[in-house]
Amino acid sequence: MSPERNMRIRQLLALRQPSLTLCLEQLDKPHNVSAIVRSCDAVGVHEVQAIWKKKAQIRKGTAMGSENWVYTREHSSIENAVRYLKQQKMQVLVTNLSDKAVDFREVDYSLPTAIILGQEKHGATDEAIALADQEIVIPMVGMVQSLNVSVAAALILYEAQRQRQIAGMYNQPQLSAEECQKVLFQGGFP
Amino acid sequence: MSPERNMRIRQLLALRQPSLTLCLEQLDKPHNVSAIVRSCDAVGVHEVQAIWKKKAQIRKGTAMGSENWVYTREHSSIENAVRYLKQQKMQVLVTNLSDKAVDFREVDYSLPTAIILGQEKHGATDEAIALADQEIVIPMVGMVQSLNVSVAAALILYEAQRQRQIAGMYNQPQLSAEECQKVLFQGGFP
Ligand SMILES: C[S@@+](CC[C@H](N)C(=O)[O-])C[C@H]1O[C@@H](n2cnc3c(N)ncnc32)[C@H](O)[C@@H]1O
Ligand SMILES: C[S@@+](CC[C@H](N)C(=O)[O-])C[C@H]1O[C@@H](n2cnc3c(N)ncnc32)[C@H](O)[C@@H]1O
Repeated sequence: MSPERNMRIRQLLALRQPSLTLCLEQLDKPHNVSAIVRSCDAVGVHEVQAIWKKKAQIRKGTAMGSENWVYTREHSSIENAVRYLKQQKMQVLVTNLSDKAVDFREVDYSLPTAIILGQEKHGATDEAIALADQEIVIPMVGMVQSLNVSVAAALILYEAQRQRQIAGMYNQPQLSAEECQKVLFQGGFP
Repeated sequence: MSPERNMRIRQLLALRQPSLTLCLEQLDKPHNVSAIVRSCDAVGVHEVQAIWKKKAQIRKGTAMGSENWVYTREHSSIENAVRYLKQQKMQVLVTNLSDKAVDFREVDYSLPTAIILGQEKHGATDEAIALADQEIVIPMVGMVQSLNVSVAAALILYEAQRQRQIAGMYNQPQLSAEECQKVLFQGGFP
């Protein structure tokens, strides 16, 4: 690895936010997954969780490979994903267009946080909603029922970025030295 | 028109923000245009400006028709579009990944505002950048160079929504009585 590349990756790792993640529940449009991963990289998400419906299909056309700089951790079910997230002591939020949901800007994203995003057509499953700690919603004043899922993901991520910046969380490295070494040893990302 | 539909449209019109608009410069992916129009509807944009490259093509697969609740005003060139926007006394912002650009959250969106979004591959044209009053950028801390255009559009629109809500601009109708009558007379949107 060239010294420039090594430096660039070190700079990137110093800004990564391992205590912020998304959980993509059965998304099936590659362009949405691709746009979401770009937004994750842009705010410093290090790893996203994914439960695929048709695994082979989704992976083909997306940026979920070497073009991107965000790891994907696959889970075989939403229970497994949520169990993993709770082991990491994360609050688990689920996006849902319901009366029980709180405004997405009212949440404290400086806490370790995972946000479940639902499938394009049907939204998050009942199971995901039951397993999560809190439902959140992005307010809308128009006629259309919902936002595009990659748009919703980005709005929540950038609210988290805003709060974490104010809290100084981009000023000191959050990723463990061990994880940084792993990435550098691999010569970058997969 | 049923009384329910009439009421629903009146409620919608009371929240519309005619002093906030986007200008789409030669976007060519229908799914991006569709996601952008959904976000516009969600924050109360009444009309978007568009300059198409291949007009027929873009209109086909998109939500730019009766499924949506946002008008589209087409312009034959970016000069014509900016001239129109300046006649409306709007500040014209252009998204650009440059050193001259200010952070998108530093702008006052309670002023009449138009935001130019650039084409997926090449971004806004030099012409658009020269004609605009101010360049704006969404901060990014990762490796990827840019966000998806529909994501960028939504982040800026929701920052405008946040500011306008605080300024009380959703508490009293902004659309002229004449424009409301026009929409109601048509029995809704096109
Ligand atoms: C197109 S929506 C699914 C709509 C589905 N008909 C429903 O009622 O849930 C797909 C995903 O986008 C996200 N989403 C869309 N609009 C949202 C909003 N206003 N607030 C929060 N999340 C939203 C959620 O993750 C949702 O699961
Ligand atoms: C994919 S980008 C174009 C990238 C192009 N290579 C460039 O350098 O401008 C397409 C459009 O998305 C919007 N966009 C993407 N990332 C942005 C960011 N970080 N800040 C502001 N706008 C952005 C802009 O409207 C841009 O014209």
